[in-house]
Amino acid sequence: MPISMYQAAVPAFVQTLSALSAILDKAEVFAAERKIDPAVLLGWRLAPDMFALARQVQIATDHAKGCCARLAGVQVPKYADDEASFADLRARIGRTLDFVQGFEPSDIDGSEERDITLAVGGREMRFTGQHYLVGFALPNFYFHATAAYAILRHCGLPIGKRDFMGAT
Amino acid sequence: MPISMYQAAVPAFVQTLSALSAILDKAEVFAAERKIDPAVLLGWRLAPDMFALARQVQIATDHAKGCCARLAGVQVPKYADDEASFADLRARIGRTLDFVQGFEPSDIDGSEERDITLAVGGREMRFTGQHYLVGFALPNFYFHATAAYAILRHCGLPIGKRDFMGAT
Repeated sequence: MPISMYQAAVPAFVQTLSALSAILDKAEVFAAERKIDPAVLLGWRLAPDMFALARQVQIATDHAKGCCARLAGVQVPKYADDEASFADLRARIGRTLDFVQGFEPSDIDGSEERDITLAVGGREMRFTGQHYLVGFALPNFYFHATAAYAILRHCGLPIGKRDFMGAT
Repeated sequence: MPISMYQAAVPAFVQTLSALSAILDKAEVFAAERKIDPAVLLGWRLAPDMFALARQVQIATDHAKGCCARLAGVQVPKYADDEASFADLRARIGRTLDFVQGFEPSDIDGSEERDITLAVGGREMRFTGQHYLVGFALPNFYFHATAAYAILRHCGLPIGKRDFMGAT
């Protein structure tokens, strides 16, 4: 079977979101063991003007749900962005997984030339579906998922690349 | 035109490697302005048991060249891994860009079912071409490119996500 828009998108989001959820599990246990207030980890940043852990997870999920919705031509679900615990973040990831796994290949396949218009940082960006997926949604998604991983590694969480890769 | 293995791979590598090269340019200027020995930045790590900046860039390029070569069924070029300056790393990225841009779509398209076998951390991993691209090469590539970015952000380099995204 030739690769398709669905196959280039949904399995990628599912693999890395599932891995990220398991990493957050480990982070919660780690915080409890070390008597670290979970809010400290959720608010940790690699630089003062970078997003904190919780926001990195939110944005990673935003790219996953936004990408699948836009390619399928359906409304992007809005989340409240009010996650305040590891459990909340895992629930958000779970909700995102349910959403992206709810698409059939036929919903997303054939979206290569779909016109995708986004407002990003006050400017309008226009893409074809394929350019949006390959040149925008996937790099953004992996960027924020990796940033979340890197924040936790920096804070001493004993995880490795295999955790990030999940069930490769 | 339907998305293809080439279109899911080569433009992604080119965009992010080009962006990474420009980020390394900025890091070199930053080091000179702040009188930071470039070797300090090249050796910086987000955690003692994470790879340093130079190694992150090396591995990102390894995934780009390895992916394109394996999907096309040609020998993966070996690099000496001896980069000791920002200029060396940019040269490595340039060499990788030349390599991945040297493929024609017809070299890589149709590789969905190609048998890809890798030795990773002492164990053998087997993939189909499509699973290797979507579930292994791209997440690894973005992971190491983002790690390089995050190390430099952590060291104070004034860059933003737009630098990572490059010419989206």
